Amino acid sequence: MIESPYLLFLGDAPDPLAAKVAQGIRDWRPDMAIGQFRLDGCKADMKLPDLSIADAVAAGAKTLVIGVANRGGVISPAWRGVLVEALAAGMDIASGLHNLLRDEPDLVAAAEQHGRTLHDVRVPTVDYPIANGVKRTGKRCLAVGTDCSVGKMYTALAMDAVMRERGMKSTFRATGQTGILITGDGVPLDAVIADFMAGAVEWLTPDNDADHWDLIEGQGSLFHASYSGVTMALVHGGQADALILCHEPTRTHMRGLPDYDLPTLEDLRDTALHLARRVNPDCQVVGISVNTAGLDDEAAAACLAEIETRMGLPTTDPYRHGAGRLVDALS
Amino acid sequence: MIESPYLLFLGDAPDPLAAKVAQGIRDWRPDMAIGQFRLDGCKADMKLPDLSIADAVAAGAKTLVIGVANRGGVISPAWRGVLVEALAAGMDIASGLHNLLRDEPDLVAAAEQHGRTLHDVRVPTVDYPIANGVKRTGKRCLAVGTDCSVGKMYTALAMDAVMRERGMKSTFRATGQTGILITGDGVPLDAVIADFMAGAVEWLTPDNDADHWDLIEGQGSLFHASYSGVTMALVHGGQADALILCHEPTRTHMRGLPDYDLPTLEDLRDTALHLARRVNPDCQVVGISVNTAGLDDEAAAACLAEIETRMGLPTTDPYRHGAGRLVDALS
Repeated sequence: MIESPYLLFLGDAPDPLAAKVAQGIRDWRPDMAIGQFRLDGCKADMKLPDLSIADAVAAGAKTLVIGVANRGGVISPAWRGVLVEALAAGMDIASGLHNLLRDEPDLVAAAEQHGRTLHDVRVPTVDYPIANGVKRTGKRCLAVGTDCSVGKMYTALAMDAVMRERGMKSTFRATGQTGILITGDGVPLDAVIADFMAGAVEWLTPDNDADHWDLIEGQGSLFHASYSGVTMALVHGGQADALILCHEPTRTHMRGLPDYDLPTLEDLRDTALHLARRVNPDCQVVGISVNTAGLDDEAAAACLAEIETRMGLPTTDPYRHGAGRLVDALS
Repeated sequence: MIESPYLLFLGDAPDPLAAKVAQGIRDWRPDMAIGQFRLDGCKADMKLPDLSIADAVAAGAKTLVIGVANRGGVISPAWRGVLVEALAAGMDIASGLHNLLRDEPDLVAAAEQHGRTLHDVRVPTVDYPIANGVKRTGKRCLAVGTDCSVGKMYTALAMDAVMRERGMKSTFRATGQTGILITGDGVPLDAVIADFMAGAVEWLTPDNDADHWDLIEGQGSLFHASYSGVTMALVHGGQADALILCHEPTRTHMRGLPDYDLPTLEDLRDTALHLARRVNPDCQVVGISVNTAGLDDEAAAACLAEIETRMGLPTTDPYRHGAGRLVDALS
């Protein structure tokens, strides 16, 4: 568990997209970020107060979150002075970079000297159990996609936000680095040892109140040749009561696999539901989330209407139109 | 790659079943084992010459393989003297035990002193790539099961043996500890990091001659709530041309999951084929392997006949009747 509130470190972000972790925290957990720290030349801006390390600590910041990724995911030499200063001033550091904090001797030394914690959220820190498949109390919703990176995390976060607004009991369950940094905990599923993947998902979504929903962040796709095993573990470990199908209509091939067409939404529905019912016979596909960022308003509306008619399921773009209809579909 | 020939270490095996790794090597790679080493009270016997460490080295043994597992998979204190002696005499040691050789200071020290290698086959030693799904040359056959431990490894080994007898080009590709110890190399798939599972399978089954078959050892089951993600990675990474369905007809529930019924063979056929065709549209289900060890001759014959009629596919128990009909079905 990463202690909040955070100081968002934007470093020397070359463009706003490089700061997508910071943007995710800003969008979904605005109360957790009390300021930002930018180096000269930073092209990202979270519209938060620019705080020095000392001011951030004085304002109560507990953790500096590296909210920026440069090419290669390395810890830039330009950042080190600030990171060491943050540790010395009493903050922990959290990072989802490939270049682990724990592999940097200067950061390890400073953390030890000042009794602080380095959170590398790419690395599992729990000995997860083998999945036991036993039915758990409470409700679970899982987003499954026709491909990777089609908006599964966004969909789950948007549904969670609507449910909180409505006073429903819900928890977003992060299964990837960005989701973990946004919410402060979760399972970095793609880094878990194969035998324990489904068990990690069971561990992440334990028994709960009968009217509580876990919104489980999806990963990969059952149809993606590289990552389908991770998705399968989510489908069986997640024991979903409700599946949301996620899709990006302008994608011409599977992400990273130029020879692979996307599956149809019908195929995703049938395949995911059949597998999910193995662990929860009552599972239903309840709605469809379409990422229409690549379409203008008219084309987006036509696309959503066509899919809704064809599939007979509530279909929306939660970024454009909100996730309310998907939440309606849960009850 | 584990160097052969082997000396099979049977230790103080309390019964023959405890020496199943040694038995597998004896059954499937008899040329690789030149002797056995037994301690007082050993209840297993591979019908190989009992050799001292010195005699084994003189006869050319390169590796002592721990062919026995006691309760808990630990390295027994009673074994240590022999293991250190083997290292000092110039042999490597290979083990699939949970208790890793590398975690034992006395064995590590002896290996370093004598320049020998400790092979813990449970631990991956390769940085596997992310799977790319690109079509590979050569042919591949994968065994998929209605459950775990229904005879998938045995089926692949038996088919490989028949193909070698017939002068066909084939390679058994091990994906588990026992298979790796039997054949000397492979991928310990259940210990691979999630993101790299399918890539490890692609790495294990590379481009080959057009008429060469990889017989890929299956793991888990697409229907097993604990391990289905590992199986999925085999189905997508394996790019199978041919699937063999494996089944154990007396099983009353999924192994380790008392609340879970077994899927039907029809469901296994349809589900596995649909997923496998994602990476190889020409994939076919070609035969069925039934482990009839729990049935008498008459019941076994009736069971095989019923399944063959119902499924319309060559159906056999490779242990009882050989794997010839399954190999016939590949062409």
